[in-house]
Amino acid sequence: MKTDRNAPIGVFDSGVGGLTVAREIMRNLPMEKIVYFGDTARVPYGSKSKETVIRYSRQIVRFLQKQGVKAIVIACNTASALALDTLEKEIDIPIIGVVKPGARVAARETTKKRVGVIATEATINSHLYRELIQQIDPEITVVGKPCPLFVPLVEEGWRKDPVTEIVARRYLKEMQDEKVDTLILGCTHYPLLRGVIGSIMGDQVQLVNPAYETSLALKQLLIEQDLLNQGSVEEEFPYRFYVSDAAEKFKSFANSILPYDVEMTKQVNLEE
Amino acid sequence: MKTDRNAPIGVFDSGVGGLTVAREIMRNLPMEKIVYFGDTARVPYGSKSKETVIRYSRQIVRFLQKQGVKAIVIACNTASALALDTLEKEIDIPIIGVVKPGARVAARETTKKRVGVIATEATINSHLYRELIQQIDPEITVVGKPCPLFVPLVEEGWRKDPVTEIVARRYLKEMQDEKVDTLILGCTHYPLLRGVIGSIMGDQVQLVNPAYETSLALKQLLIEQDLLNQGSVEEEFPYRFYVSDAAEKFKSFANSILPYDVEMTKQVNLEE
Repeated sequence: MKTDRNAPIGVFDSGVGGLTVAREIMRNLPMEKIVYFGDTARVPYGSKSKETVIRYSRQIVRFLQKQGVKAIVIACNTASALALDTLEKEIDIPIIGVVKPGARVAARETTKKRVGVIATEATINSHLYRELIQQIDPEITVVGKPCPLFVPLVEEGWRKDPVTEIVARRYLKEMQDEKVDTLILGCTHYPLLRGVIGSIMGDQVQLVNPAYETSLALKQLLIEQDLLNQGSVEEEFPYRFYVSDAAEKFKSFANSILPYDVEMTKQVNLEE
Repeated sequence: MKTDRNAPIGVFDSGVGGLTVAREIMRNLPMEKIVYFGDTARVPYGSKSKETVIRYSRQIVRFLQKQGVKAIVIACNTASALALDTLEKEIDIPIIGVVKPGARVAARETTKKRVGVIATEATINSHLYRELIQQIDPEITVVGKPCPLFVPLVEEGWRKDPVTEIVARRYLKEMQDEKVDTLILGCTHYPLLRGVIGSIMGDQVQLVNPAYETSLALKQLLIEQDLLNQGSVEEEFPYRFYVSDAAEKFKSFANSILPYDVEMTKQVNLEE
């Protein structure tokens, strides 16, 4: 079976956070079409078990394959950390996550070999960032810290709020004490708190957003597998969005972070 | 079909919050057996659409019926507000929620006819508390306010924390300005923040926890329908717990709020 280069890229996340990854793909691969799936009915993934995150991710991958995607990007740190290993054995199209690209850039950027990772409970407990970074350089110390309130604070719209700053100061204290020089924003919501996190950590600490690096890794992969779209995206709807709940709410959030107007968002039920 | 008086009561919630309701049932109906279901894989319900909450609740009701329950208590404000109406038409055993009992006690207790309701977004947007209270007394003013950060703050374990107090002060400001004399804790997690909420609202404001009133409504219902358990609970496991994810985590939370040790917690998959 020959894969169609004109086929879209499948991108999925537990909810809206993965749009920060979709945005980077739109910027760096403007010729590519995208089918995005946000599991808004079952968000968040960060506090769920590995078994459940794999089951949910598998349902989404099946849905994306039915949409005829040529490759899949797991735009969710938790699903990347818990489900990528399993899923890549089960499907015959390329699939990548955000953790490996994020780990790679952190290992490259750290000058004092001290990297911090902030992420969901599930991502931190998987220890995958540490494992991947130390595969590149075993001398790098990696300090992980779950920040469970960051996602609800972003969703409450308190992105530049004194409360968010107090919470962030508490969560980040360990990172300051450990004198990390590079900090991975290991959950797709966290780049939306970049302002607060950056001002607490200070200019000398490099903040790594895996989204940008993931879009580069995707480009590399498409080139290697001869899957780059050669034509131009002239379709009326090059970007299609699907969610498992509350399409209208998703659309308004999407419109606030994407550089163009999201027209079509459809709700689908994966459980049937 | 004759229903068995010895059959258990089914109690369900989106997660652990409903245990505060189960606890009241254990206290006020010590002869009754309980099958509890917490939908920990899909928690929270408070930000989901009506359609999705009905679909999930229906799956749980079906599961509880398979366990042979004689009556069902929806121990979740969001599911009570969004799904009870639909579900009671679909099943032939008695089913009650927490909203109606909570509304009734608030209407009875308010002296200045000014009631506040704090709850999830979905519960507030349903306007059900207001509707039910004004059915009892149309002159009562009802002020609603969603408090989306309360649940994550409880789950983070910051129940008596300065951050929680700042957040609560902001959420409750409207309730103070509106001079409510009675405040409904309209989400099963909120009674766990009773200390902070009570100190902000002051002694003159009555806090209503629908859980206690719900256990009394259940008792009344069982008497009316001749369903009270006449024997004694001498089984080894009168209380059985089921969750859709992370049974161990649930067990440790349950053990922190129930007056006895939770032994058996089983994980089940409702989607198959």
